[in-house]
Amino acid sequence: MSYYKHHVFFCLNKRDAPENCCACHGSEAMQEYAKKRIKELKLNGQGKVRVNKSGCLDRCEEGPVMVVYPEGTWYTYVDQADIDEIVESHLRDGKVVDRLKI
Amino acid sequence: MSYYKHHVFFCLNKRDAPENCCACHGSEAMQEYAKKRIKELKLNGQGKVRVNKSGCLDRCEEGPVMVVYPEGTWYTYVDQADIDEIVESHLRDGKVVDRLKI
Repeated sequence: MSYYKHHVFFCLNKRDAPENCCACHGSEAMQEYAKKRIKELKLNGQGKVRVNKSGCLDRCEEGPVMVVYPEGTWYTYVDQADIDEIVESHLRDGKVVDRLKI
Repeated sequence: MSYYKHHVFFCLNKRDAPENCCACHGSEAMQEYAKKRIKELKLNGQGKVRVNKSGCLDRCEEGPVMVVYPEGTWYTYVDQADIDEIVESHLRDGKVVDRLKI
């Protein structure tokens, strides 16, 4: 049994233009939003969900990226609607969001 | 198949005394050391090992902590000898280091 049922890591790495990077695509705000939504839904805590900041996950060209463990599902996202879908479908209801998977 | 065979996250969070925190126990230097050792052993990269920095993993009182996914193995450590053992036993040879598990 995993300490967290879903442990989410958002890449917040910054690189200078013209390099691609997750922070260039607003990953910091999206991580904060995801963390806030998880708390609002009372899904945070041991045995439930943890939303973390992370250094470079080294998939920069596919960014912005996040990964959910222990299942090892990688996502990209554009906006809060995408985060809402990942939070509600995957992290709350256990159903992977295929359209955002990478 | 996981994108990384072993994806390691070191908590680098700092809190002010008298609170416990992972950075108070040298986690930044240990993360850098682990990353360097993985590169020296040519274990880094897709399908192999990734050593990441992370924000607070919320197990402060058991810190310093790191977690290895997708297996979800949590470790604490004291010094480079502990990191060497985790790198060589778990990340290279696939054998969990029971004495450092939390």
